[in-house]
Amino acid sequence: MRRLDSHAADFESRFETLIDSDTPAQAEIDSRVAAIIADVRARGDSAVVEYTRELDRHPAADMDVLEIAPARLTAALEAMPAKPRAALETAAARIRSYAESQKLEAHAYEDEYGNRLGQVIRPIERAGVYAPGGKAAYPSSVLMNALPAQVAGVSEIIMVSPAPGGEVNDWVLAAAALAGVDRFFTIGGAQAVAALAYGTQSVPCVDKIVGPGNAYVAEAKRQVFGRVGIESVAGPSEVLILADGSGDPEWAALDLFAQAEHGEDSRALLISPDNDFLGAVEAAVERLLEEQPRRDIIRASLANHGALIAVADMAEAVALSNRIAPEHLELAVDNPDALLDAIEHAGAIFMGHRTPEAFGDYCAGPNHVLPTGRTARFSSALGVYDFQKRLSIIHASARGAAALAPVAEELALGEGLHAHAASARVRANETRG
Amino acid sequence: MRRLDSHAADFESRFETLIDSDTPAQAEIDSRVAAIIADVRARGDSAVVEYTRELDRHPAADMDVLEIAPARLTAALEAMPAKPRAALETAAARIRSYAESQKLEAHAYEDEYGNRLGQVIRPIERAGVYAPGGKAAYPSSVLMNALPAQVAGVSEIIMVSPAPGGEVNDWVLAAAALAGVDRFFTIGGAQAVAALAYGTQSVPCVDKIVGPGNAYVAEAKRQVFGRVGIESVAGPSEVLILADGSGDPEWAALDLFAQAEHGEDSRALLISPDNDFLGAVEAAVERLLEEQPRRDIIRASLANHGALIAVADMAEAVALSNRIAPEHLELAVDNPDALLDAIEHAGAIFMGHRTPEAFGDYCAGPNHVLPTGRTARFSSALGVYDFQKRLSIIHASARGAAALAPVAEELALGEGLHAHAASARVRANETRG
Repeated sequence: MRRLDSHAADFESRFETLIDSDTPAQAEIDSRVAAIIADVRARGDSAVVEYTRELDRHPAADMDVLEIAPARLTAALEAMPAKPRAALETAAARIRSYAESQKLEAHAYEDEYGNRLGQVIRPIERAGVYAPGGKAAYPSSVLMNALPAQVAGVSEIIMVSPAPGGEVNDWVLAAAALAGVDRFFTIGGAQAVAALAYGTQSVPCVDKIVGPGNAYVAEAKRQVFGRVGIESVAGPSEVLILADGSGDPEWAALDLFAQAEHGEDSRALLISPDNDFLGAVEAAVERLLEEQPRRDIIRASLANHGALIAVADMAEAVALSNRIAPEHLELAVDNPDALLDAIEHAGAIFMGHRTPEAFGDYCAGPNHVLPTGRTARFSSALGVYDFQKRLSIIHASARGAAALAPVAEELALGEGLHAHAASARVRANETRG
Repeated sequence: MRRLDSHAADFESRFETLIDSDTPAQAEIDSRVAAIIADVRARGDSAVVEYTRELDRHPAADMDVLEIAPARLTAALEAMPAKPRAALETAAARIRSYAESQKLEAHAYEDEYGNRLGQVIRPIERAGVYAPGGKAAYPSSVLMNALPAQVAGVSEIIMVSPAPGGEVNDWVLAAAALAGVDRFFTIGGAQAVAALAYGTQSVPCVDKIVGPGNAYVAEAKRQVFGRVGIESVAGPSEVLILADGSGDPEWAALDLFAQAEHGEDSRALLISPDNDFLGAVEAAVERLLEEQPRRDIIRASLANHGALIAVADMAEAVALSNRIAPEHLELAVDNPDALLDAIEHAGAIFMGHRTPEAFGDYCAGPNHVLPTGRTARFSSALGVYDFQKRLSIIHASARGAAALAPVAEELALGEGLHAHAASARVRANETRG
């Protein structure tokens, strides 16, 4: 693995290269996606079917074949062996409880004039959930994306997930049943995003689209943003481990592997002030790698984007972490609470030696859809709040209107907005109306 | 004004045309904006200065001239006459209180195994606020955009606002002082958004950009989204009044004017089951329009996008309102609470005859930056939460790790992610580590 030292002369440039989250120019993807979206808008189902036949090598003749009936979702759940089914149900229950704890609530207060101010909460009406399909079919992603929508009270959850060659993953179907998915289409790529954003003869248009996908899906979500909501444009996944040396180097190595096995573009970083520990992690990586079934992906990922970084002390480790704003941050120390206050940016924080990212990926409860590529500087985990809206409420009393009107009038006149001023002024007369 | 009747044969098509929020193809704006962003990224300050000289006809020779020192902001506040200053301060205090009432809070709970789950809250570090300048310079927008950032605890608020011809609006400077703006640059357009997103020699890069602007600013925000956060891509402003006929038609006319005077692309709609009331509003519009200093804009706006819509009853009015998902919704009825439960989508709701939109625009407290163009289906008012992030916390106990590990392992193996499984498994042994 790459080794960096914060005292080295070239550290800044190497570190900047490592954390650079700029995606390379992708003009070709952009224009291809724009063409697919325009085509789906214009031709609806027939365009979606054609792209699905071409890009997913799916033998479907029409859209009917591409919808999976709710009964088949339920049947997939019923058919699961007891042990994985119990695991899936435990994960779902925990994800659901956490989402319940985050629900936005209505609130209101009265000011000194009896004006009522506050907000009411409404769910989004129809949500679209994208779940990757084929080789990278993850039932956990289905739970993480759809359950918060269900907890929010979304009326209809539409899932899309490609079935390359016509093959579907039964655990994905089972997870969809558990998460209350209302309709399930085996379509994917930019064509699925376009179908959800604009609607077709068969696919209902939705209000917001969430869920991970490849570069085409990410770009399609970006292009339909505004027409519908999106939760984020996801990039490659990342983990940063801050280790003071008190942990087991093999655990650290396995946690780096767990991130790296997602794909060759994943990023796995570890920062420590303990040089012996860094050496021990490096040795553990070498020693354990061969046991890993996904060792080729792990090796490529660690070579491309992995690093072990030596620093002076844990304060410097935290400072670098804040520059990275990692999606997943593991605090591999005995007392993680002592570091927590200084952490400014991270998607999720895994506290202490007993909390690997894998718990958060599957079953701890908090969502595994997290801001990537330094976007934790300004965004947060997917949550029930992504499927809820706050509607502001202003209810002026007669006395309150008399108090607010002169303020609004004065400011409106200052902005040259005379109708605003008049509209406020007429409310000031307490005896009228 | 245009009159529609929900019983007419052509109602659906006329209504759809009226609420169509699709922006026309704007390929020229897109590519012009992309070129400006690329240029500012490449050349920094000198590109920004050149665009400012060209597009804003500002005589600035360099960026130094385009920054306004904090002392000058304070001086502008001190120089304000007492009455408007008091109004600005009252508005600021009310906006600040409302933002305080909305702050996200940390929370955590323990599950049955002693695992701690929850979230901590951190402010965004640096926020960029765009405020329109020149003729449409609105001190109220400065307060509405910057105060939630200040309440959130943002470390540095960078404001950009163009000064066409070199002229600045003193009330805008005063509002910036009140709202705790740290640095103020008189730059605008796509070049200002690019400078905030990527940083230049003089302008620091920020983590999120908020605030309204013209089509170039909106497109620039869309293009830098991902590199930085944005609150929304704002379109023309809108009001929808639901009236049962119990109100004063002149008040309704003034409220329609207040929306229409923003610009020729503003939308002002009123729906009522009371045909006499609709006639009275139409007559009031005709009668009062000539008194309005901004009558030319109002007339054009009402002709282009205004409408009075007759419906069977208030239930139908609410159903149409939910299809429109209006930015501003006035419930011009005696008992607005009776309608509230049925309202699914709206940016802000103005309850009862005494609450004109103008109160919300200036001083009621809730934010006036609201979702436009039907985006209230999936988004909410700007708020303190736009400047805060939720960082998920997972802290497994030894007993809790032993409970979670088998669940994570089972699901990881199901997804073929063996390193995830191993990383979970090693935490299960309660006596080790």
